[in-house]
Parts: sequence; C-alpha cells; structure tokens
Amino acid sequence: MSKQSVDILLTNGWLVTMDSQMNIYPDGAIAVKDDLIEAVGPSSEIEAAYKAKTVINCKNCIISPGLINAHTHAPMTLLRGLADDLRLDVWLYGYMMPVEREFVGNNFCYIGTMLACAEMIRSGITTFNDMYYHESEVARATSEAGMRAILGQTILKFPSPDATNYDESIEYCRNFIEEWLNHPLIIPSVAPHAPYTATPDMLKICVALATEYDVPLHIHVAETALEQKNSLAAYNTTVVPWLDQYNLFDAKVIAAHCVHLQENEMYMMHNHQAGIAHCPSSNLKLASGVAPVQKMVDMGLHVGIGTDGPASNNDLDMFEETRLAAFLQKGVFNDPTLLSAKQAWALATIEGARALHISHLTGSIEPGKRADITVVSANNTHQLPRFARDPEGVYAQLVYATKATDVRDVLVNGRLLMQNKKLLTIDEKYVIKEAQKIAKRIDAFLAAREGNLMSKILAISADFIPQETFEVQVKVGLPEMIDLTHMLKEAGLSPFRPSIREQYDTYFFFDTPEIGRLRFREDRLKDDDGNLRETFYRMTLMGPTNEKEFENSVLLTRARYTASTYHSLRFNREYYKPVSEREVIKKRHRCHVIYKETDFDINLDHLEGKEDNNVYFEIKSRTWSAKDALYKAELIGELLEKLHFKEEDQFKAEYVDIVEST
Amino acid sequence: MSKQSVDILLTNGWLVTMDSQMNIYPDGAIAVKDDLIEAVGPSSEIEAAYKAKTVINCKNCIISPGLINAHTHAPMTLLRGLADDLRLDVWLYGYMMPVEREFVGNNFCYIGTMLACAEMIRSGITTFNDMYYHESEVARATSEAGMRAILGQTILKFPSPDATNYDESIEYCRNFIEEWLNHPLIIPSVAPHAPYTATPDMLKICVALATEYDVPLHIHVAETALEQKNSLAAYNTTVVPWLDQYNLFDAKVIAAHCVHLQENEMYMMHNHQAGIAHCPSSNLKLASGVAPVQKMVDMGLHVGIGTDGPASNNDLDMFEETRLAAFLQKGVFNDPTLLSAKQAWALATIEGARALHISHLTGSIEPGKRADITVVSANNTHQLPRFARDPEGVYAQLVYATKATDVRDVLVNGRLLMQNKKLLTIDEKYVIKEAQKIAKRIDAFLAAREGNLMSKILAISADFIPQETFEVQVKVGLPEMIDLTHMLKEAGLSPFRPSIREQYDTYFFFDTPEIGRLRFREDRLKDDDGNLRETFYRMTLMGPTNEKEFENSVLLTRARYTASTYHSLRFNREYYKPVSEREVIKKRHRCHVIYKETDFDINLDHLEGKEDNNVYFEIKSRTWSAKDALYKAELIGELLEKLHFKEEDQFKAEYVDIVEST
Repeated sequence: MSKQSVDILLTNGWLVTMDSQMNIYPDGAIAVKDDLIEAVGPSSEIEAAYKAKTVINCKNCIISPGLINAHTHAPMTLLRGLADDLRLDVWLYGYMMPVEREFVGNNFCYIGTMLACAEMIRSGITTFNDMYYHESEVARATSEAGMRAILGQTILKFPSPDATNYDESIEYCRNFIEEWLNHPLIIPSVAPHAPYTATPDMLKICVALATEYDVPLHIHVAETALEQKNSLAAYNTTVVPWLDQYNLFDAKVIAAHCVHLQENEMYMMHNHQAGIAHCPSSNLKLASGVAPVQKMVDMGLHVGIGTDGPASNNDLDMFEETRLAAFLQKGVFNDPTLLSAKQAWALATIEGARALHISHLTGSIEPGKRADITVVSANNTHQLPRFARDPEGVYAQLVYATKATDVRDVLVNGRLLMQNKKLLTIDEKYVIKEAQKIAKRIDAFLAAREGNLMSKILAISADFIPQETFEVQVKVGLPEMIDLTHMLKEAGLSPFRPSIREQYDTYFFFDTPEIGRLRFREDRLKDDDGNLRETFYRMTLMGPTNEKEFENSVLLTRARYTASTYHSLRFNREYYKPVSEREVIKKRHRCHVIYKETDFDINLDHLEGKEDNNVYFEIKSRTWSAKDALYKAELIGELLEKLHFKEEDQFKAEYVDIVEST
Repeated sequence: MSKQSVDILLTNGWLVTMDSQMNIYPDGAIAVKDDLIEAVGPSSEIEAAYKAKTVINCKNCIISPGLINAHTHAPMTLLRGLADDLRLDVWLYGYMMPVEREFVGNNFCYIGTMLACAEMIRSGITTFNDMYYHESEVARATSEAGMRAILGQTILKFPSPDATNYDESIEYCRNFIEEWLNHPLIIPSVAPHAPYTATPDMLKICVALATEYDVPLHIHVAETALEQKNSLAAYNTTVVPWLDQYNLFDAKVIAAHCVHLQENEMYMMHNHQAGIAHCPSSNLKLASGVAPVQKMVDMGLHVGIGTDGPASNNDLDMFEETRLAAFLQKGVFNDPTLLSAKQAWALATIEGARALHISHLTGSIEPGKRADITVVSANNTHQLPRFARDPEGVYAQLVYATKATDVRDVLVNGRLLMQNKKLLTIDEKYVIKEAQKIAKRIDAFLAAREGNLMSKILAISADFIPQETFEVQVKVGLPEMIDLTHMLKEAGLSPFRPSIREQYDTYFFFDTPEIGRLRFREDRLKDDDGNLRETFYRMTLMGPTNEKEFENSVLLTRARYTASTYHSLRFNREYYKPVSEREVIKKRHRCHVIYKETDFDINLDHLEGKEDNNVYFEIKSRTWSAKDALYKAELIGELLEKLHFKEEDQFKAEYVDIVEST
C-alpha cells in the first residue's frame, strides 16, 4: 500500500491531544495537509500511512495544541514596564491614558502587535483574543505574522485614541469587520470596553453589529470589586444582569476577568454560553483579586486563560499564566486538589477555544481541525527527571515545570511560524528596533513631564487650559479673634458675600524647588449655623517664591495653574510623588469689600495646630499688570491704615511657611 | 598611572548593586580579585583603574547580586513531578515518605543535589539554604558545583532515611559540622525539621549544637493553619512562643514558610533577629496560604524568598518565585503598591542574605564582599522595549519581565560557574543520565505499587507486617429483631463478652476486581446505655471472591491484610482512588460462644438503608487450615440446627454485595 502524501509530519513526540477523550500518545505523530490536521495517532501507524517533504522529529518533546491567549491588548506590549506598582487609577489616568492619547496610532498598533506576536509565538501561543484601537493595523500585523486571532475594535462612550465619539468607533468597527470577515486567520469582533465605559444605547448598537455579522463580542466584566459596588449604587444591580437588560448575551460574548461575579451572574452567563477569560497575573498585579475559576469550571462555564496586556503583567507568557492559575485556585481557595494540571492545561487550550467560540477550528489535535500545534522540548534540566508510569504526568510537566522558553516549534493553520526557536514570519530585529524607537519617544515625553509639574498636571487634565493668575496680598497677625464685619463697618466699609469655610490644604514639595509646589485644597463651605453646604476641591500650582514685594509687606504672588480636581489627595500623592508634604488647616471668615471701585477679598483666618499667634487678617486682590499691581498695593496700604493695623504686625510669609512640617 | 591587575572584569552592564544606598550604574563594571569584589562603579572608571585576563562584556545585560534561594530541599529535585495536585497528607504520607524511605541514600542525595545545582546556576542562583538527609553528600555535590550554601542536616523525632532515631541524627549532624565548618562555600547548619516533629529535649540539643559551633538553625515554622491549631490544642500556645520556651531563638534561626504567624510571633522573631524564608509557589501549590510578607518586611524582619523543594513547586526558579511573591502581596492583600519590584528584588538578594545571617559575605555587589554575581540578558523579545528615564525601572524589568532562562553568566566566590549559558563545573549530561536512572527505579516501584493494593497499603504502613486471616462464616436472614442472648441460652449455649457496636463500613472498588477491595471500618463500641465507649478504625484488604463454599452456605473468606489505620476515610479515598464506593452501616450485637471447645463470634446485625430483610444472624470463626476449616464448617452446621434456623434462610453473600451502590 502506497503512503498518502501530506505537507508536514510531526513524529515521535509525547502527544497530548486535548480531544474529547483526552487521548495521550506517549510516542505520537500528526499528519498535516494544507491548513488541516489530517491524522493523529501512534508514530508507527502515522509513519506507515503518510509521507511528507517536511518531517519534524519531536523526540524528547511534548506536542500539544497551541496555547490560546484568551485576553490581551497586543499593542500595549510597547508599554511593558512603563509604570509599575501603582494603584489602578494612578496607573491608568496618570500613565496609560496620557501616553495612549499621545502615542497610539497606526504605526504604534502595527509595531506593538508585531512585537507581541513575536513573543507569543516564542511562547507557544497560536491564537489570541485582542481588544485595542486601530484594530485594522493589529489585524494586518497578526495576519503577516501568521497567527490566528479574534480582534476586537474597542468602543468607549468617551473619546478614544482612534475616535472622537462612539459613533465613529462603531463606524470604524463595521468597516473593520467588513474588511476582515472572511480571512482564514482573523476573526474581527466588537469590543465595547466595559459596562462602566458604555451607555445602554452604545451596548445595543454593539450587540446588533455583532449579531448582524455573527462575530464575537469582547468585553471586560466584573474586573474589580469597585465595579460591582458602583453598578449596585448606580443601577441597583450587578453588572451581568445590567448587561443582560440590553441583550448583550444575544451575542457570542467573551467576558474578560470576571473576578467578582456573583453566583447568579455565573448561572446567567452559563445559560447564555458566554465565554470567560481568566487573567491571573493582571488580576494580582493590579490587586483586583482572584477569580473563582474552579467554581466556574465546575458549573460548566468555558473558561480560558489570558495574559491581559503586557502593561499589567508584564509579559505574554501563557506557561506562567497557566501555572499561576492552577496555583492560585489551590492556595487561595484552600485545597491543593483544585484546578489540577490536567484541568489547567485544558483551560489553556481546548477550553480557551470554547470560551472564544472557536473550538470547531482549534484548541485540540484532532483530524479536521486547523493545524495549530506547539512542540515543547521536554529534556531540559529544569524539567527532569521524568516519571513515565502515568502518561497523565505530562500535564504536571507542562504546567508546573515547563517554561515558555522551552517551546521549540510552532505551527498555525498548517504553517510553520517557528522552527528550532527561529521565527520564520517576523523580522524580529526590525520590530525590536522600531519598538525601541517608540519607547524612546515615550521616555522623552514622560521625562519632560516628570521634571515639569505643569506637564504632569496637563497629562491628567484633558479639558484644562492652564492660566496664570496674580494676586497682591498682605497678612496681619492678630492677638485674638475679632468680629470681622463689625471691624469693617467701623472703618466705613460695606462687607458683602460673607462666608465661613474650613480649608484643608496639603502642600506637596519636590526635590528641586524651582519647579514649584502644589497645593491641594479641600474647601468646605459652611452655612451660618455651621452646617456643611458644599465642598470644593482645587489643585493649585504655585511658583517657588513670591514674585515681588511692595511697601507695607504687600506681596505679588502668582499661581500658574488652578483648577478643580476630581482626583483624591491619595491619587495626587501617588501620582506626583512629593518628597515632603505640609498641611495647613484653617477656619476662614471671608467677605468682599469694594474700595475705590476695586474688589478686595477680606479673610479672617484661624489656623489650627499653632499654639498662639494663630489669627490672621488678610486682604487680597487679583491683578494682571505691574502698574495695576502697584496701584492695588497702594490701596491695600490705605485700607490697612483705615483699619488701624500696625506695620510691625504685618508679615509677608505664606501660611504654609509658618506652620510646622508634618 | 598603571592599571591594577585583577582576575575578572565585568563591564558595560546595567549594574544593580543592592548596596545600602541601592546604587544603580546604568553603565557599570565590577573588578573581581580572588574570591572578592575589589571595586564597583561606572565602566569608564573601573576600566581606567583595572585590567584583567578575563573581561566579560555585559552590554545589553543586567548585572545583579546572585539570587539567594532561602529554602529548599535540593535532593528532592529527583522527585519533581512525582505526584501533584494531592492533599498535603496524601502527597506526604502516600508518596514522598514511602519513596524517600525506599530510595534516599548517599547517591540519591549527591545526584539530586547536582541536578538541583545545575538548575539553580542556570537560573542565576548563587546561594541556597538547604534542609535534607545525608547532608554530607549534599555538601560534596554543592562544593563540587561551586555554589555557596547553608546546608542543614535534618533532625526528626522519629526515624528518618539516614537515622533510626534522633540521637543518631544529632551525631551525624555534629560530624557533618566538624567536617565542613571551615569550608569557603559551605556553612553547615542544624535543621530540626519542624516544631511538630520535634520534642523539647531534641530542640534543646539542636540549639546547643548550633550555638556551640555558631552555625545557623534551619526549621519549618507555621507552614499551615493546622500546625498552629494543633499547637494551640496541645500546648495552649502557638508555635513561636512554644519554640521560644526551649530557647530556640538563641541560635541564628532561619524559619521557613511562616505563613500563619500571629503578630506577636512576628515581634518575637524580630526581637531575636530570626530570618524568614518565604516560599510562595509551594505555599500555594500545597494550599497552605499566603504569608503576610509586606507586614513582616515593614516590621523590620529580614525575609528571603525560597523555592522549597521541587517536589512541591516544581522547579528551582527564583525569577518565578520573586515575581509571584510581588504579585501575591498585591492581589491577596488588595493593594497594588505592596511589595514593589524593588522590594521584591531586595528580598531575592540582600534581604535573603540577611535572613540567612550571611549578609557580610553576599547579597550585594560591594567591595569586600564575595564575588557572587549574576549576569542577565536584557534584550530578549519578552523584555522589550526598555524605558530608560527612570534607572529604577530595572527592578520591574527583572521582576516582571525577565525569565530564569535569560541568565547568561554566573560567578560564585569569584569563580565562573556558567558562561554564555554553558555550565563550567557540572557534567550536566552525566547528572541527567544518573537522575533518569533513579527516576526509572522510582517509577517501577510506584507502578508495581499502583497495580497492587497490598504494596500500596504497605507503602504507607511503616510498622505493619501483612498477615492473612481466614474465616468460616454463615449468615441467616431473620424476619425481625430477636433477643440474641435469650435465643443462645435457650439453645444451651453460654454467650460471653457481649458488646454493642455501630459499624460504618466503606468499601473501595477498583477497575480490576482481581486486585481485591478495601474496607475502611469505623467501629463505634457502645456501652449498655448506648453511650460511645471507644472508636476503632480498621482497614481490611479483602480478596475479590470467596475462597470456598461448604455445606449450609458456609463460606471460607480471606482477609489478606487488616490493621488499625490512623488515616481518615478522606485520606484513603484520595490515596487509593477507588473507581466506586459502597457504604454498609449496621448496628451489631456481638458475643462469643464456646461450642465443642471452639470459639465462635456471634453477631446479630441490623442493616441501615434496607427497607426490609435487614436483620441478620451471623456465626464466624477464624481458621488456618483446610482441615480445620472443614471441621469448623461442620460445627457451624450443628449450631444452626440447634438454633432452629432453616436452610433456605441461609445465604452466602456479604453485606456489601446486598446493599445498593452509593
């Protein structure tokens, strides 16, 4: 009997099929013809029946279905190591978003994806599920690299790096789907980023788009406890039922993270056959928590494993991820029998394919499926010795003792992408050079920002236009509290718009005084009965010194930036990283007076934390020109005289310079 | 000025010193002379001042102090992948201990350590802290490999693979210390295994030995919650105060794990300057939990990171371990700023050295310290791009994006152990071949055991001598309960030693009936008032079929093994892995009668879970010969007649075969 011709034979490997019987062939072989697996079995049988020009001897290797990275943001590989060990908001609003706003374009996405593909192929990944911007460029790079991928165009309710509004994103997405719909490797998808960045209307359009083209819908779900808490507060329901209201699960959903699902949400997702992408490294690194994977698996949910983007990982290593997934279930849920090596390897392969709704194509080694295959060396020092009595020991070897760098050969769709650790479809040197160029520009952007408070402020204040304001001001120390209104009226002035405030100021100081200091103010406005009426938060960047001094200790001060802030003191502390801080707390009686047609702020301040000399009277007025400043300084001199303040009681320091450092 | 001659120059590397100022030289160099670091600084300065025959260019590499593996059992590398995903007791008593009892000797320890050293050098480890048996062989292998190590001879209160009692272990340990005390690489130590495997007397002797020679004392502490619970129950105190009673902390203690320390215990250990070895992979894999590392670090405790033995990890990869340590603190204690990359790298190097009480020798790159240095490639795809604006970004690169396989060169004590990924002191091929031989023998041992219940029983029953027992027996079904004593007396018999028992039997069945079935019996002996007097647990291995049948349905049965068991039903279930189980629960009235000088057990059994026909009368007698069996069968026939039982009510099945499968 003559042998049948195929394209590639992989022989003599320890073959883990991950098929429905979980067959293992201790000496197995695969025949590949075109893009498909033609036959699988013991080497002797396959070699007797098939011949091929390309025969890959897999002696001392494990042959496995290629790994499936169920959730990533491939272009963010360019942001690996950009910012680490930060709280989520500082990381996201302080670093990721400003850098993405500045740098993410077509070239960034193309080069970033190429770099990601190089790393993923090297670590045995054959399929990945992506969510990012400019996804057409991601598709172009992926198809050139020869990998299989589900690529989701991100849709946000607010502006994104590739759209000024979500109508544009959806339009982009529709065109993207049309362009790539029938590609042999690329499956386009719709990726509304998350429930909290979506509107109901936006979600409905996304579902309609995904169902119209029968493509997957990729979304982040219940990544943090805060997301669930906020959803409950805003909508009186957790996120999955909220999404279900808009029929999200009519689409073939792939839900990333699912760290904080309630049991009823798991059942809902199971009923709707939604897939789940578990991202253990990212969930730990960003302190989101540990998803109850064993519970979801036991319930019948299809759970894959994902690396998430390398900005929060910081790599695309599915071996590391799979091992961590197994370890975490055991250690955190207190039972070493949870998520066995066999189960974990299933999550990384066939269950990943099921979670991505593509198990008819990939995820196991079976005749008729696409030839997506990874060959892993199994005789490296760190993997030895090998125990052979139980063929299923191969799973522990793969999950607990094998590293991504042990991957030797990778095939996708019947095509060799790596052989003997050499990449065949990617010009790695070129990609690295281009990646390094982009990193250098990002470095320069951030370095400039770090040395310049204004840039750092601007980086996180999308809507703000910096504006300098000048004030002339004078302070007078008082021996005790006085009746401000009474005093002003006695002097023939008519105070108006009186208010009482508690002001909590925190000043941030930096290594180099030249760059100035930041004041974060919590301004609590009280009514006459002392009840809180409103709280304002303002951030002010102040010059390091006073600009000018006039007679009577009148100072000209300058604030280079002042704006409302929606970030907390904690956020600002972690973002600006001051070398020291000082607090000024005071109760302020404020009013205005008009004197010679000029508006003056009058403050009577009672400082906290000072034993005595803690009452101050202050007159201030805004100004914009030197001549105007001089004129107003004179008027302030006249006012001080009218109020009978002595010159020796006047002083020119700011409060922050007279209180103790905390 | 002429240049000073040294032995080795490492130049042009991104140099992370981990010295007291945490100095980083973005282009740094090191001069090594003999075993010491002679000078450290910018490449230009070092190259201007020193010359050497061996110059190692570290361009595109990070130079770091060698990693310190703060806790391992090196020879157990030979047990990697032997048994996984099992509960601690099944893993330990079912696999590790039986295999250790059978295989651990000098050759095992020598080859196992060599294999471990090969893996550790490959992953950048220069120092490790060991605890095992035959530690002289561990020392011999380690010194040949050229690694630095603290090697602890294990001392247990019960027999171990290298001693029949702890006096022997201590004698071994003393000789071992004397032999290695002044070695340039090896520091011998005393290693009482754990509080729960020690006696107070044993601990005192260990402390005396460690202080006499001023060597460290290495012990497992608070690895599991159960250990603390048991300590509280037994001694009314947690383990650290219990150990302190015997002045354990007078020695230079290295405490492994410390997962479940209470705050007061942390303070005690801090006061005594005890070092801690955190083993995150092992603690997760065996479901022990996650140690509060950040808390201990903040308290000033010196915490190192360890891999533990590869049997519970399954590798010796400090990169993986360090990354996991950082991730776990963030993810489990809910704060992404915990254990930053910088702190984590310190734990893996200088803090590890402090925890091991050897920071005067190693752990940082400073003039005067031993030259223990690791050079890591930093331009692999998975590490790129690199951001350079912040020199401290190197820590994130090392901890979050670098793999053990990126290690290029390793020096210990001024000697190159690996250059360009080639091991210079170990014949890796030979070691792997020998390791594989041992693994093959272990495989054969376990394979024989797995196919043979008797072997499997023997493997976990250290003190038991298997003994076959034969019984002749007959059962009679009764329509209702009877008064057993009354009936026997009516028939002229004198019942004695009456008892009432509740017997809970669980039968394990296996794939191949030939190997027999196991009965796990919980036998609850009641007093006359029905109160529980005592509970016995017995495990019995029964043949698959009855041996012989006599007249009157009298059966000859054989139990090939019967013994008390101290393992729980749950343990036995996970260890023996039956394919199915069946439960038999009955209330038994038992007594003895003597008939024709022969002792018979008489049982009146009331089976639970059967609607009717649930009362049985049973006569049994032990036998050892065919002739004796025939004789006793005849006597049983006579007794049945005396008691007026009809032949049709007699039957030959065992209870387990007449109840429903659960």
